[in-house]
Amino acid sequence: MTAVTRSAPDRLLAVLAAFDHGHTALSLSGISRRAGLSLTTTHRLVGALTSWGALERDADGTYHVGLRLWELAALAPRGLALRQVALPYLEDLYEATHENVQLAVRDGAEVVYIEWLSGRSAVGVHIRVGARWPLHATGVGLALLAHETAGFQQDYCAGPLASFTPYTVTDPAGLRRSLAEVRRTGAAVSRRQVTDDALSVAAPVRGASGQVVAAVSVVVPEADAQVPVLVPAVRLAARGISRALGWQPGPDDGTGGAA
Amino acid sequence: MTAVTRSAPDRLLAVLAAFDHGHTALSLSGISRRAGLSLTTTHRLVGALTSWGALERDADGTYHVGLRLWELAALAPRGLALRQVALPYLEDLYEATHENVQLAVRDGAEVVYIEWLSGRSAVGVHIRVGARWPLHATGVGLALLAHETAGFQQDYCAGPLASFTPYTVTDPAGLRRSLAEVRRTGAAVSRRQVTDDALSVAAPVRGASGQVVAAVSVVVPEADAQVPVLVPAVRLAARGISRALGWQPGPDDGTGGAA
Repeated sequence: MTAVTRSAPDRLLAVLAAFDHGHTALSLSGISRRAGLSLTTTHRLVGALTSWGALERDADGTYHVGLRLWELAALAPRGLALRQVALPYLEDLYEATHENVQLAVRDGAEVVYIEWLSGRSAVGVHIRVGARWPLHATGVGLALLAHETAGFQQDYCAGPLASFTPYTVTDPAGLRRSLAEVRRTGAAVSRRQVTDDALSVAAPVRGASGQVVAAVSVVVPEADAQVPVLVPAVRLAARGISRALGWQPGPDDGTGGAA
Repeated sequence: MTAVTRSAPDRLLAVLAAFDHGHTALSLSGISRRAGLSLTTTHRLVGALTSWGALERDADGTYHVGLRLWELAALAPRGLALRQVALPYLEDLYEATHENVQLAVRDGAEVVYIEWLSGRSAVGVHIRVGARWPLHATGVGLALLAHETAGFQQDYCAGPLASFTPYTVTDPAGLRRSLAEVRRTGAAVSRRQVTDDALSVAAPVRGASGQVVAAVSVVVPEADAQVPVLVPAVRLAARGISRALGWQPGPDDGTGGAA
């Protein structure tokens, strides 16, 4: 697709899309190249975005994402707004476990991490705020997938399912069994499926209408993971966030199958 | 200004700007009205923004800010990226004080709060993530203003300086004295200047090159505020964040005047 055939909104959004985790600061020519736009067009669009505050210009002439976009993003119900409600409960979970704590939502066939608490000393995991991961490998992904519609789950399980370690469940029947187990126990356990040495325990977060809107998890070194201790802690945090979002448990929700 | 005279980028950005803290969910006609655009143009632009992920459409047909903008905003060095570095130190400060803890940056003549920890039980303050406030009233604002260039400070002090309570310092000479005091002690104290019953203590955060890039504060009820206890705690948190940003204290920075 050449620049000429693209609509005006598409060109402006292409300038924004030039920025990602590998490209947080870009020169005008870098933006032009990554957006596939002429230098003249890029110059004009970057000017408009900069004067609006969506981009900011450094002293050395490079551009980065500006504070105005951050303020706008604070209004995203599934981003900062959800994270703002959830943060106290995530902090409690961190205090109780002193392990990596995450909050994630589903976007298409992926999870997006919208919060991540690890303190300064916690073990490193390959996760950062805004990162994406397929649903079937991570604890949060399994917790979310298990509460999707039957049709969505069927399509997802039909694959292809990417493998990250020898332990990643990539066969449809095995994944379906995992999802049934998540619904039965109210928690998802992903053992060595993302990295060889990590285990995550996740639980679903429900919104006011009872539907699952997010998932919370802890990630710990697999070698000394105490799953029976982590499951109730994670489920408690998830229920706390759910209540703060307006969820009210039904008569059946005292059992393992509830959030 | 009519819609016809606006450029294509301006029209798209006007659609985004239709959303704010008072308008987090809008119908198509609501966006059209607030952006000052025809319904046809709004429909086309909202379509482009929605398919890109900048907006999301609810089941009831209203639109809100989408996850894609949140992911993009996570790249803002002065937004989520700074907040990610600062969060452990803010949590430590919260643990030490159990008071409202804030992180803010300057944008023009205002502070923008980019983090705010209060737990579930802390006293309410009129602050939220993404909120703005003039520099001269808040602790973080005073800490930031005190380290701006002489020219910037002179222009700002020349006013007009808005008043929020009978205690807000609105005379140029008084404000200049406050700023000198901030530089001398390494901390800013704002007593009853924003609301009648609150006091904030703030300290500047420095980046790798030594310039002040942010400020951290606690807000407490004025009646039982223990300023001599709060000042070292806040300064310690600010120094911790500064070090994490790559700042190295110089030979003179052990004194009260440093971050």
